[in-house]
Amino acid sequence: MRALDDIIDLFAHLPGLGPRSARKIALHLLKKRHLLLPEFIEKLKVMSSSVHQCKICGNYDEYDICEICSSEKRDKSVICVVNDIADLWAIEHTGGYKGVYHVLGGLLSAIDGVTPVSLRLDDLKRRVSADNVKEIIMALPVTIEGQTTLHYIAEMLKPCSVKITMLALGIPVGGELDYLDDGTILNAMKARNAV
Amino acid sequence: MRALDDIIDLFAHLPGLGPRSARKIALHLLKKRHLLLPEFIEKLKVMSSSVHQCKICGNYDEYDICEICSSEKRDKSVICVVNDIADLWAIEHTGGYKGVYHVLGGLLSAIDGVTPVSLRLDDLKRRVSADNVKEIIMALPVTIEGQTTLHYIAEMLKPCSVKITMLALGIPVGGELDYLDDGTILNAMKARNAV
Repeated sequence: MRALDDIIDLFAHLPGLGPRSARKIALHLLKKRHLLLPEFIEKLKVMSSSVHQCKICGNYDEYDICEICSSEKRDKSVICVVNDIADLWAIEHTGGYKGVYHVLGGLLSAIDGVTPVSLRLDDLKRRVSADNVKEIIMALPVTIEGQTTLHYIAEMLKPCSVKITMLALGIPVGGELDYLDDGTILNAMKARNAV
Repeated sequence: MRALDDIIDLFAHLPGLGPRSARKIALHLLKKRHLLLPEFIEKLKVMSSSVHQCKICGNYDEYDICEICSSEKRDKSVICVVNDIADLWAIEHTGGYKGVYHVLGGLLSAIDGVTPVSLRLDDLKRRVSADNVKEIIMALPVTIEGQTTLHYIAEMLKPCSVKITMLALGIPVGGELDYLDDGTILNAMKARNAV
């Protein structure tokens, strides 16, 4: 049946979903179609038209300048560089960071064709020079691409003489040594602190 | 941000999804909104308006009588009773069943307020009497509700003197005894066959 197969196919290609979970969702939507579908369609339309990317940091918001960048309470002299908006949300969720962000929207990768231009690094450089920025915190994933991107940005910002830091490497809260990989344990060992 | 939070909330309430996977999906849809969203909205609308429940068996299709019920190749004298359309799809996927179906759309449950009326059991009884049905295969889950429903239907169909069967209980293909529960092993032992 075309109509149902089409929607299952669309759902199955969303991140984290496969054919099985897509079928489950499509059936659920069909069963409650009068209750759920009009709202679903309406909310998707609203999202599509009303959510914009912040012109300064790349975060999503309903305004051209996002809530974080336009807030008086945020420290504009500290910029945290993140890969993705999901990472920005994760940091915001902790409630412990009071600076602003730069969302790359990807990591340098020759295979995927991600170049410095697509990460809006010029914007970042301009901000660093213009806004009297004191520190750049690199909150990038500890992967080949993440660390390549980190070092590329650090190199690029060298002339600006801004302090560049990165998140500490170590064992996570609740982490049991037995279940952690060698790299994590080695890094935690290297960076050990006095008690 | 309302527009985004609303859609994350809607996704998070779909079966199999939580807040985290809902955020991932919403971000993905936003990033590719020009590519994905118009198609998504359109296909949801088509599904909502064009998919109907088959008047005979309760399956979903674009026609009032579904492909299975209207097919000349299906044996109308064997009806397989399933809980849900997902179960019908699972059986169809095997390609080994040539009869027709009756989709209950639920299982008897006093707690959830599911009564015999909501399972369209009268329709089933009428079909059995009218269509010269020879066998009813009960393909219901092996749970309290599933087995209660099975016995209720068997009792109801007693006057029709139709053969009522249920799926065999035993160890699944690829099942290792060590990982199976006691009930499964006991049932497989009870129903053991000569080699």
